[in-house]
Amino acid sequence: MLVGDVTESVLLSKILPLLDQGGGALLGPGDDAAIVASPDGRTVISMDTLVEDHDFRLLRPNGFHTTGYDVGWKSAAQNLSDINAMGGSATSLVVSLTLPPQTRVDWVEDCARGLAAAIRDLGAAGCAVVGGDLGAGAQLVITAAVTGTLGGRPPVLRSGAQEGDVVAVAGTLGRAAAGLAILEDGRPVGEFGPLGEELVAAQLRPCPPLAAGPAAAAAGARAMLDISDGLVRDAGRIATASGAGLDLDPEVLREYAARLAPAAEQLGEDPMDWVLGGGEDHGLLAAFPRNALLPPGFTAVGSMVSGKPLVTLASRPTALRGWDHFAH
Amino acid sequence: MLVGDVTESVLLSKILPLLDQGGGALLGPGDDAAIVASPDGRTVISMDTLVEDHDFRLLRPNGFHTTGYDVGWKSAAQNLSDINAMGGSATSLVVSLTLPPQTRVDWVEDCARGLAAAIRDLGAAGCAVVGGDLGAGAQLVITAAVTGTLGGRPPVLRSGAQEGDVVAVAGTLGRAAAGLAILEDGRPVGEFGPLGEELVAAQLRPCPPLAAGPAAAAAGARAMLDISDGLVRDAGRIATASGAGLDLDPEVLREYAARLAPAAEQLGEDPMDWVLGGGEDHGLLAAFPRNALLPPGFTAVGSMVSGKPLVTLASRPTALRGWDHFAH
Repeated sequence: MLVGDVTESVLLSKILPLLDQGGGALLGPGDDAAIVASPDGRTVISMDTLVEDHDFRLLRPNGFHTTGYDVGWKSAAQNLSDINAMGGSATSLVVSLTLPPQTRVDWVEDCARGLAAAIRDLGAAGCAVVGGDLGAGAQLVITAAVTGTLGGRPPVLRSGAQEGDVVAVAGTLGRAAAGLAILEDGRPVGEFGPLGEELVAAQLRPCPPLAAGPAAAAAGARAMLDISDGLVRDAGRIATASGAGLDLDPEVLREYAARLAPAAEQLGEDPMDWVLGGGEDHGLLAAFPRNALLPPGFTAVGSMVSGKPLVTLASRPTALRGWDHFAH
Repeated sequence: MLVGDVTESVLLSKILPLLDQGGGALLGPGDDAAIVASPDGRTVISMDTLVEDHDFRLLRPNGFHTTGYDVGWKSAAQNLSDINAMGGSATSLVVSLTLPPQTRVDWVEDCARGLAAAIRDLGAAGCAVVGGDLGAGAQLVITAAVTGTLGGRPPVLRSGAQEGDVVAVAGTLGRAAAGLAILEDGRPVGEFGPLGEELVAAQLRPCPPLAAGPAAAAAGARAMLDISDGLVRDAGRIATASGAGLDLDPEVLREYAARLAPAAEQLGEDPMDWVLGGGEDHGLLAAFPRNALLPPGFTAVGSMVSGKPLVTLASRPTALRGWDHFAH
């Protein structure tokens, strides 16, 4: 059955049962708008879009299919990550699907299952899909907006890091980029063994560390963001916003790279490029006061230093840049 | 200059100054997420998408251009209308633009101006564009999510109407549909005179009556929605959700139709079809207790009646249906 064969209300009736209506929803789908609890009188809000052939490919030359489940998962994950990066917890998602009429209805159902699974498996228990929009288009586009609560705490911005702060990472680095390199290589994923499967999964279904954001806020993090465009580029955003240098420790980062080495070797790549430049793992990068106890899941990878608001690697310039949607 | 010639951050730097950052924003664009005030501890949220060649046409066979301003306006208007329909006031918009690389940068700037103008001119003073997403795609897609506040009142749902209630409309009926008919006719819009220009404007830049939603809630409206898919279809939603019949008064509706008559005559159409079946004016349809004083801007157009949850016209069945995105 194709999307073009059914009405919008039939499609909705297939999707809604797959989406849990718990969490912070005071009123779920079905009216002109939904209502979400904002217990401390503030609402954190963000939005992210995934576009077919730009952010995902439904079918690759090597025969690899990206499933609806993958796309739904990734949409939820990258949105939940933005709330995490403020030190908050997600309370709701609204999701717009633009679907070519030839899209299979079961692909859309699978997408709803992926949304629900990401919310559940990433531990965003307070979050529900409370609404959205369904429409037709030439290209598959999924846009989600996410709301969250700060639980009475101040938000952790990009701008608060101070000279001397410890810079730490939660979550993985470079794995999603390695997975993308494998997908784009053209060889069957199986040739990259179990590590290859894991890296591809990291690209398709990223796992932002959702407990780490609120924990960092509670531990006194002074600046934080999620690493969506690559460590160096996102570190540069903290440096710029905070008006201080950010020096990364290549020794620690080499440990992240070492875990990617077998795949890098098969592809003839330097795994440090993935660690420094790869986005989409949606880990967190945060600056903590020097004497703060790092919360569970965080690893120190550098420090804030005096001087220009630039990112350095053992005090040397870096020349990497991350992803730009239009020019790259 | 085309979107494909500039980086995402250059494009952002051109758009952001065009968007007012006032309203309920506690933190505007620039971090991983924005923060909006939710003074009564609840947030109303909704989302709507416009897709090129489905919801708007950039260039029509008769040479008529839809501007970025129009698309931005309409996106804001239809989202603001969803908050209005709950009896709330909008506090923020987040907007995702998916842009073909050959889109002109000034088209995008114009779109931002249209968003800002709709917020300002429709009277949504408490609302600001606080964030969003920019990305590339084959087709122009604009998705906005809107948040709002209920100002301490309960929301007005679709489900509360009771037998004997007065059913009333705020805003216009059938004008946007008439405008679309003119645009699709193929003749230059000028041939339809000043009325034609007004009707086309109603299609391109709808003006939901944003003061009327909170006024209706304050006046004790028991059910409400915005008329986005046509009067009969949307009335059917109140009837179904409330479990009562909804009888419309054709005499009153003929007055709405009479204002469209000259354009209908030129097109060989029955203007009552636009009044009964046309959506996109984003007026409000609400049910009030029989003795309630209707707030300014509302006109009684019918009543809730006993019997099956169907819409009737002077007690006779209606056979019209509104817009469906996939099957129509």
